[in-house]
Amino acid sequence: MSDMTLDEALYTTRAMRRVRPDPIPDDVQARILDAAIRAPSGGNTQGWRFLLVDDPGVRGRLAPIYRDCIDMLWKTIYADRISAMEADPDAPDSIEMAKVQRSANWMAKNFEVYPLLLFAFAQGDPTGGSIFPAVWSAMLAARAEGIGSTITSVLMFRLEEVLKILEVPPDEGWVFACCVPMGYPTGRWGVARRRPAHEVAFRNRWGDPLGFEVPGPLWKG
Amino acid sequence: MSDMTLDEALYTTRAMRRVRPDPIPDDVQARILDAAIRAPSGGNTQGWRFLLVDDPGVRGRLAPIYRDCIDMLWKTIYADRISAMEADPDAPDSIEMAKVQRSANWMAKNFEVYPLLLFAFAQGDPTGGSIFPAVWSAMLAARAEGIGSTITSVLMFRLEEVLKILEVPPDEGWVFACCVPMGYPTGRWGVARRRPAHEVAFRNRWGDPLGFEVPGPLWKG
Repeated sequence: MSDMTLDEALYTTRAMRRVRPDPIPDDVQARILDAAIRAPSGGNTQGWRFLLVDDPGVRGRLAPIYRDCIDMLWKTIYADRISAMEADPDAPDSIEMAKVQRSANWMAKNFEVYPLLLFAFAQGDPTGGSIFPAVWSAMLAARAEGIGSTITSVLMFRLEEVLKILEVPPDEGWVFACCVPMGYPTGRWGVARRRPAHEVAFRNRWGDPLGFEVPGPLWKG
Repeated sequence: MSDMTLDEALYTTRAMRRVRPDPIPDDVQARILDAAIRAPSGGNTQGWRFLLVDDPGVRGRLAPIYRDCIDMLWKTIYADRISAMEADPDAPDSIEMAKVQRSANWMAKNFEVYPLLLFAFAQGDPTGGSIFPAVWSAMLAARAEGIGSTITSVLMFRLEEVLKILEVPPDEGWVFACCVPMGYPTGRWGVARRRPAHEVAFRNRWGDPLGFEVPGPLWKG
């Protein structure tokens, strides 16, 4: 097991999309999954299934679908943000959007590179509150192993084909939550920039000030 | 900051409902929130708001609503599991269900005891994948501070009243994700029992064996 502190993991596990094709050993995969299933779930029902895809054939069938889904993402959900970015490329939101788009496009173009895709499915979990703690635990455990990952749900756009490729039974109530591509990153770990807590948190009533400010990241490495 | 390892946090942070009324200091709350906002979100939009409730008046108005919601939970979503439990109280699932019910009923009865309620709201997050990593990070950071917590979404049953009490604006698209009651636990931390990874994970195609077994918890403290 790793001796990474919780704080380092919480502060430096951000979306990591640029990875190398090196495979992830079985013992590392075991530690990632064993950490995931320790997460709580509503009524401790553990209504989750994880599908680990490393077969190049399966990954190869998913890759062109993934690329189409990313194209659709820019044309639908992100259309307004992209128009805003093109209208005013130097605005802070535009710079962030451009970064997100470059990174996501790299992932789409290089989808075959990811040595491991972790798919998560849930049963009886309308809010996502019983599957995403487990998914996030898997990503934190991966981080401690030096493995980068990101949550992507865009395969939703062509879900039927994806479920067919993965041979998910259509009649058992398993709902696709996300895909988490994993791999050893080419870049470096670091603390991501975020809007500070006191700007996104209230006290007792919506809009009332939190009562304190949290200036920068409290963990600095 | 705490020096707890990631592994200890991931393996011992389970739903903790029995807590003492002792308040949670501001500096601890700051560390919990600052960890939460480091989590990734789709397109790094950070479409989240956190509402910390410690005012006894607000908690007192929520408590009877919470108790009604728990009653409704047993009569609706959990009705089948409770019937099964009553029919065969010695079955393993029944023993687990009885434990969950006792613990949740304790929480309902003692709702006023929790010194801090963390409410999470999301915008543009249909799967929950952009809010629950942050929520779970908050709970892990709380664990490292010796604070127990649990995710509860039952207030959904009477959401309109809850949003009115919290003064959430009805027209800004903020969606209630969950409530996380927090407090210093009366019981002890430990590794929760879970169905092992190889029973809930597949390789490449749904139903195909993972390729290895994960016998017990890989972290033992």
